[in-house]
Amino acid sequence: MTSPEPTPDAKTTQGSGAADAPNTAARDASDAADLVITHCTALVHDEREQIGFVEDATIVVRDGRIETVAAGPLDLPAAERIDARGQVAMPGLVNCHTHTPMVTLRGIAEDLPVEQWFNEFVWPIESNLQDRDVELGARLACAEMIRGGVTCFADHYFSMDTVAAVTAGSGLRANLGQTFFSSQGAAGRERSLDFALRHRDTAGGRITTSLAPHAPYTVDEADLAATALLAREHGLPVHLHASENRDQCDASVARDGRTPIEVLAGAGLLDTDLLIAHGTGIVERDLPVLARATGRIAVASAPRGYLKFAWPTTTPVRALRALGIPVGLATDGAASNNSLDVWESMALTALVQKFTGADPRRLTSREALHHATLQSARAVGLGDRIGSLAPGRRADIVLVDLTGPHTQPVHDLAATLVHSARSGDVRTTIVDGRVLMRDRELLTLDVPSVVQEMNERMPALIDRGHGRRVQEYGT
Amino acid sequence: MTSPEPTPDAKTTQGSGAADAPNTAARDASDAADLVITHCTALVHDEREQIGFVEDATIVVRDGRIETVAAGPLDLPAAERIDARGQVAMPGLVNCHTHTPMVTLRGIAEDLPVEQWFNEFVWPIESNLQDRDVELGARLACAEMIRGGVTCFADHYFSMDTVAAVTAGSGLRANLGQTFFSSQGAAGRERSLDFALRHRDTAGGRITTSLAPHAPYTVDEADLAATALLAREHGLPVHLHASENRDQCDASVARDGRTPIEVLAGAGLLDTDLLIAHGTGIVERDLPVLARATGRIAVASAPRGYLKFAWPTTTPVRALRALGIPVGLATDGAASNNSLDVWESMALTALVQKFTGADPRRLTSREALHHATLQSARAVGLGDRIGSLAPGRRADIVLVDLTGPHTQPVHDLAATLVHSARSGDVRTTIVDGRVLMRDRELLTLDVPSVVQEMNERMPALIDRGHGRRVQEYGT
Repeated sequence: MTSPEPTPDAKTTQGSGAADAPNTAARDASDAADLVITHCTALVHDEREQIGFVEDATIVVRDGRIETVAAGPLDLPAAERIDARGQVAMPGLVNCHTHTPMVTLRGIAEDLPVEQWFNEFVWPIESNLQDRDVELGARLACAEMIRGGVTCFADHYFSMDTVAAVTAGSGLRANLGQTFFSSQGAAGRERSLDFALRHRDTAGGRITTSLAPHAPYTVDEADLAATALLAREHGLPVHLHASENRDQCDASVARDGRTPIEVLAGAGLLDTDLLIAHGTGIVERDLPVLARATGRIAVASAPRGYLKFAWPTTTPVRALRALGIPVGLATDGAASNNSLDVWESMALTALVQKFTGADPRRLTSREALHHATLQSARAVGLGDRIGSLAPGRRADIVLVDLTGPHTQPVHDLAATLVHSARSGDVRTTIVDGRVLMRDRELLTLDVPSVVQEMNERMPALIDRGHGRRVQEYGT
Repeated sequence: MTSPEPTPDAKTTQGSGAADAPNTAARDASDAADLVITHCTALVHDEREQIGFVEDATIVVRDGRIETVAAGPLDLPAAERIDARGQVAMPGLVNCHTHTPMVTLRGIAEDLPVEQWFNEFVWPIESNLQDRDVELGARLACAEMIRGGVTCFADHYFSMDTVAAVTAGSGLRANLGQTFFSSQGAAGRERSLDFALRHRDTAGGRITTSLAPHAPYTVDEADLAATALLAREHGLPVHLHASENRDQCDASVARDGRTPIEVLAGAGLLDTDLLIAHGTGIVERDLPVLARATGRIAVASAPRGYLKFAWPTTTPVRALRALGIPVGLATDGAASNNSLDVWESMALTALVQKFTGADPRRLTSREALHHATLQSARAVGLGDRIGSLAPGRRADIVLVDLTGPHTQPVHDLAATLVHSARSGDVRTTIVDGRVLMRDRELLTLDVPSVVQEMNERMPALIDRGHGRRVQEYGT
């Protein structure tokens, strides 16, 4: 350790050089990348957004961004190195619509129609919700997502100051919105705006925000129109549930002759940057309405819950894509989906689109990966920052181990990723260049302590004896 | 270590006692259980086959069988102990219909209709198949299944002597059948019988066998009738594909006025112990035919592939159950399913039955677990040996870790197992009391060496330049 020469391993350089040769060390430190990932297969997009793979790639990360994705080794110093042999590096998954604190209710209301699920379980229990419940739920959810290769999520819930604090601490990226109902009066909308303004671009830019009306069936048209005005005034996107299922669409048409999408158009929301959750009730007549939108419209699809609730349709991915509308992958909350496993959403999106479209050629693995990467990034308003391993993008990267027997041999790497790999194959999760999980070990969250306190608080949380509900479900 | 008294840890007792006090040691050794699993939550069935859970259970294994499943600790010596705190012990999963060596072709023919999949890829490639390819594929498949909590599988393929040898070495349990087509003449059927007779009840009883005609669309009725006679003469079950999809059913009716199930009935196969793979083309008029069967009929369902091939229907689980027909879980081969993940089949069976039945109350988690346990055991003809953690049954047990963030908290343990847990949560896999995987480490198979040789052989295997096929797909 006497040589003052820089070495390829910057840890060594900084460790010994700093004392022995300050000038060299300083020069090395400024040159050193923050993170270099070597010997991986990198999932990249070409200029037409076609997905390809770079073999034996090196990825260089500096200041939270991807600086280089190159084939072959690069001999340069780095503060941290990861040898990712046998692993695929890909953009972190994005959970485009969830309610993180609902992991607390995972499995509490099973095998029920959505009406009973809401009215008899979820909304009575949510009337007991305390900030501490939200905090514990969000922590558990962040742990689950990091372990499942999710690096960014769009959350729509209550007590979002708490969720923002947990997100900041977890190291994840998120777009957060404070849910409101018209039953809360103007105060609900104002709190949603206040939250969005206070938290916008916080946590070093990792947190962005949206206005978050619940849905056209719980927020009246005046409130929706006021939200659209606020969105334009403040340059904020809007995230809401709409046309979640066909019943909601039919009920809306029966009520005032318009579909939920037409209601959104009437309120001016299609002229904002709008993320629509679910949209399985989007019908043929909605398509020209969506085509006329001047805002950036996206839809988040969480297909597992649609199967579980036995909804008759799924998100019309093909029709939306034909309009250029990105369809991002999502899990919804774990109280309906039972997990926050976006990897599963990716596979199920492919399978369900083939099945409901009666065509096995539909939604190929490469298309599924496009949904999982660029389309999901766009859905949460981050299409220029994440979603691709390209120089200049934020370094939100997951490393997926393909050495397991269930992912070998590899004839078609896209198919291996979509149809054979599982969320549990993610070994390392990186956001903004910071490693949040290394070799399956969580570095920013402690699960056992969260679960223990959650279980202590559970009896008070799930008590439904009071007969209250935060809202009434009726399409 | 001077006390001659038996201790709860038989390893210690045997280690020290054997030299110091032979008589005591001999007594201890004969008393010692082979394996004791402590502090687990045990999935059990009551006398009405309802699924329940025993908290803080101890499971005692002796001579390959379950001797005791008891609540609380049991103080007895054991050759091997597993502390399974935070884990659920459940019967190992059964893959009721697969083609293990086809893992070699995982991902080679994607996003295609079944006709193209067979005629352009699988059957041309299978004409190149050598015993060594089968051996490597079977080894990789066994590794994947052990890691996914599968302890038994029903395999229907070529070169089954080789698969039997791999199965024996892997430690898994299996029902094996040598596939035949009528295009092979009488020799195909004779080889299938010869295989079944030679391998029946081998590998210490872990291997059972079936006659294995391919399907009514590749095996003519005379051959099917001859198979039924052989089955009765030799007391062998029959395993075949039938009414795999609605097209096959329609084509059969158009051809000679009978559905594939009616063809099986005409051939006498419904009066044998018969395992039907898939059956998504089973129609209303088949139900009374199945109801009149005098053999033990079962159906294996592999729902992922049906979605992927965009078949219009799925296995009619509810109608079959109404007839008392067990429906076991399966993956089919990995060339269509992309994995041998029976855990996923369990969850997808629940989700798809809800969706296709338009009722979220269908196929609850407890029902899914009943399919995964007793019904799957019955489907492969082992209903009295496996499928339940009950005294006297073979000790085919998996330990599932529920401490991960995605499986917490637990409100409904059946739902947690079916809808939140994943195959990768299986930590330990035990067959006949022998540990085949401990803490995710495979003890009987080496994956890297298999994958390396498989990849070396791959160019010759997947060459389709010769223009041959083992068979022609046409319903």
